[in-house]
Amino acid sequence: MVTPDWIAVDWGTTRLRVWAMAGADVLDSRSSDKGMGALGPDQFEPALLDLIGDWIAGRPPVIACGMVGARGGWAEAEYRATPCAALDPARAIRPKAADPRLDVHILPGLSQLDPPDVMRGEETQIAGFLAGQPDFDGTLCLPGTHCKWVRISGGMVEGFHTFMTGEIYALLTRHSVLRLTVGDARPDAAAFLKAAAQALANPDLSPAGMFPLRAGALLAGLPAQDAAGRLSGLLVGAELAAARPLWLDRRTIIIGAPDLAAFYHQALTQAGADAHVMDGAALVLSGLTAARAAIA
Amino acid sequence: MVTPDWIAVDWGTTRLRVWAMAGADVLDSRSSDKGMGALGPDQFEPALLDLIGDWIAGRPPVIACGMVGARGGWAEAEYRATPCAALDPARAIRPKAADPRLDVHILPGLSQLDPPDVMRGEETQIAGFLAGQPDFDGTLCLPGTHCKWVRISGGMVEGFHTFMTGEIYALLTRHSVLRLTVGDARPDAAAFLKAAAQALANPDLSPAGMFPLRAGALLAGLPAQDAAGRLSGLLVGAELAAARPLWLDRRTIIIGAPDLAAFYHQALTQAGADAHVMDGAALVLSGLTAARAAIA
Repeated sequence: MVTPDWIAVDWGTTRLRVWAMAGADVLDSRSSDKGMGALGPDQFEPALLDLIGDWIAGRPPVIACGMVGARGGWAEAEYRATPCAALDPARAIRPKAADPRLDVHILPGLSQLDPPDVMRGEETQIAGFLAGQPDFDGTLCLPGTHCKWVRISGGMVEGFHTFMTGEIYALLTRHSVLRLTVGDARPDAAAFLKAAAQALANPDLSPAGMFPLRAGALLAGLPAQDAAGRLSGLLVGAELAAARPLWLDRRTIIIGAPDLAAFYHQALTQAGADAHVMDGAALVLSGLTAARAAIA
Repeated sequence: MVTPDWIAVDWGTTRLRVWAMAGADVLDSRSSDKGMGALGPDQFEPALLDLIGDWIAGRPPVIACGMVGARGGWAEAEYRATPCAALDPARAIRPKAADPRLDVHILPGLSQLDPPDVMRGEETQIAGFLAGQPDFDGTLCLPGTHCKWVRISGGMVEGFHTFMTGEIYALLTRHSVLRLTVGDARPDAAAFLKAAAQALANPDLSPAGMFPLRAGALLAGLPAQDAAGRLSGLLVGAELAAARPLWLDRRTIIIGAPDLAAFYHQALTQAGADAHVMDGAALVLSGLTAARAAIA
């Protein structure tokens, strides 16, 4: 029987992950596909109880981050305006729960007014990173469905910029005419790097280069992995061109799934950036642990 | 009872349109949603017979263009390599039909080797345009799901370039996180023009400007029509930047649906181009009529 003194929750759009914690130690962990995107207003409490119902006899605090706090989530947590610290657990929102054993705290997200931008969940990863490297000065790049580029200075989040590159790649390869050419092929690394360099040097190339992938397959048998690599390179290269002020002459740490992080790393290194990869798997938990220390 | 001396067919991915013709005169017309994308190999002949079954007692030639001739269509018509004339009806393919009254000719598409590109159907619109303006020298812009930019000189198609702008706009507004902000809102013309000018001047802005539309709606109530106009402007502006050699200092005729053609026209005119709009509705039929004259 697990009796945690608190529970960590990472509740994104597609996944719900929970950890039974004793201080900074993990006693147990579970996950389900009951992400925020799949749930109606009354389904959050049952989805959480499904995973943690046998951990909460002692009413331990439950610290949650991510889209669970979005409009349309369980309860809307605020956005804190940058520049600011990555976390302010005192401004967590406490959703009403029918089960009296539930003591849930949802952490706020971050916002930026100009250009307008928002994040929910990544701020907790950033806090986890800063817990380990409090003096870091530079840029964090968090690739994924939406890639976040985050300027860090003096222990604060100065500002950030979101790119939809991952979502656009997925839409193009699953739903556009390019699905017939690329599908779910694994992107070829050499094709990726070449296209990324071209698009970084000439961002015009990105929109112009997409349909030729389909035509190249029809006319010259362009292999799916080459087309996948080239499409990814065109999109990531255009993102790197737009994000250039964020990585040029600034130490840049890429935090994300290993395969994707490696692609960003290679493209940035090829462009002369001072870029490094860090495994991000543990950072959400570090950030939630930092938040818990401040709350309870 | 209609007894055409030939039948014109425009058979694209999503629609099938047919005309009963006497020379260049339309006796009757019909259409269905049995586009090539919805049909298996054995379904083309029945889909066509559904529409023209009562017109073909005299076995009139049926002249078809479009995706019906693609790989995965009724029968694969070749691609003719540019530079070349828009049409060569002698190279039409004649699919086998079970019904002896059917005498079907599918016109070839056009291709370009470098950069690789293909078209099916637009070459017939181009032929229709050139039938009316045989001495035209300049560029044709055919916006739609895929926008084709076509260089015309000496009555020939010199080369062309396809952009996926329309398809990407549809995917983003229907399936990405931007669906929550834009949805099916009608793009605001002023927001479109401003964003198009910005993206044309600085193509980096196009990928960087997308997620801020969602954040602007969340943080500052950005109206859906403004977000739609701005997204369309970012995408079309980036396309115009990439297509600049095709319209700069060249007379450019935009042929497409009136609303979309007007947007391209305004953005091009604002950029100083010598651009004009032409109603494209009748051009496919003019092109098919030109092809029929050569075939029968």
